[in-house]
Amino acid sequence: MSAGYGEERNMEDQLIEEGAGPSHSTPSLPLKVVLDTSLFVNPDVRSSLGSNPTEALETFLFLAAQIHILEFYMPPSTFDELLHFVQREKIPGDLLVILHQKPPKKHELKTPAFLLYELIEDIRERINKGLRVAEKAVRSTGKMKVDEVIQDLRRKYREALREGIIDSKEDVDLLLLAMELDALLITADQGLIKWAEKLGIRWLFPEKFKDYLMGAIRRTEILSRTEG
Amino acid sequence: MSAGYGEERNMEDQLIEEGAGPSHSTPSLPLKVVLDTSLFVNPDVRSSLGSNPTEALETFLFLAAQIHILEFYMPPSTFDELLHFVQREKIPGDLLVILHQKPPKKHELKTPAFLLYELIEDIRERINKGLRVAEKAVRSTGKMKVDEVIQDLRRKYREALREGIIDSKEDVDLLLLAMELDALLITADQGLIKWAEKLGIRWLFPEKFKDYLMGAIRRTEILSRTEG
Repeated sequence: MSAGYGEERNMEDQLIEEGAGPSHSTPSLPLKVVLDTSLFVNPDVRSSLGSNPTEALETFLFLAAQIHILEFYMPPSTFDELLHFVQREKIPGDLLVILHQKPPKKHELKTPAFLLYELIEDIRERINKGLRVAEKAVRSTGKMKVDEVIQDLRRKYREALREGIIDSKEDVDLLLLAMELDALLITADQGLIKWAEKLGIRWLFPEKFKDYLMGAIRRTEILSRTEG
Repeated sequence: MSAGYGEERNMEDQLIEEGAGPSHSTPSLPLKVVLDTSLFVNPDVRSSLGSNPTEALETFLFLAAQIHILEFYMPPSTFDELLHFVQREKIPGDLLVILHQKPPKKHELKTPAFLLYELIEDIRERINKGLRVAEKAVRSTGKMKVDEVIQDLRRKYREALREGIIDSKEDVDLLLLAMELDALLITADQGLIKWAEKLGIRWLFPEKFKDYLMGAIRRTEILSRTEG
């Protein structure tokens, strides 16, 4: 799957395949796509769309308006996060029409119980890492100023405890919404990708987001020509 | 439910009620009971059964052998924990017959998705608490020896991060087994009780464990007289 994934032809093939299948694992068009803020905010991922979050979101809206074979979703909690990063007055009203806001049905959905073991094992390891970071900080007080030690501690502690983990309401919203809609999750967050794997949620390499949109535009054109 | 819960008459009433009901919420006899190690190990809870874990387990086996209306279960992981605390050579072979070892069907069971939010919220708070404990430790290095600070840090950090949380494979095993068997969970662990509440798992005040066994013995006698 990953070989040649970036080529536009393959993108189209995938979209055709996904659109053609009859079963649950290959849902019919329009395919639902759940987007994370990181696509517009994370500089590494965003760059193909724009030089800042506002530009990236504008580019996305421009491209998405030409796509009829995908439906874009974002949980309200994630949407709210996104609005903190953009200049709201520059974002066209299209946004609300093109990017559907929907919270997951969190009181109806169920998750496999064995995930609890993995989550708890993960947390235990991180908690132990956090303690080691704290111990190191205490031992380094002889060599550095206390305020510097504290600053260093905060950074390293957060790194140790948060990296690669689902650690917020927003993360859970994204996973559950993708699960509920049987959607493709597009995010640059490694913790979310790890959990998408566990839950059988389809996901896309985030750096391929623009390629994917371009492929979907071409596929929309082909389909509309066939239909017309 | 909690008023007069400790009185022996009420124990019997509850057992009769639980035995009589036809529905899922009042399972038929024998009622399944899932036991945690803490009942035999935690000194506050154990005291009514014996002055040490071995004695407490022996007393339990003596009482449980007279009870025909309850089935006792323990996940193998918890059983393994228990064996670390007792003198194995003193425990009668009855143990394996009376206390059934069964792991939960962790790949079949599902848990409500909204619990993920609660677990993650809980963890976030604890992680922040842990950082505050670490910062305090760094600031106290001027006043105490480094080794003392580290010892103090370890204790407080573990307290902050572990108390009242499900934080081990054994905890998850107990919860899921109780869920699977629709069993009564008896534990002295507050974290487990909190989660039993969330999952709709029936639980018993752990200090009432012996009273419960005594009530079950009397109920067994009444039922065998009625039947005979």
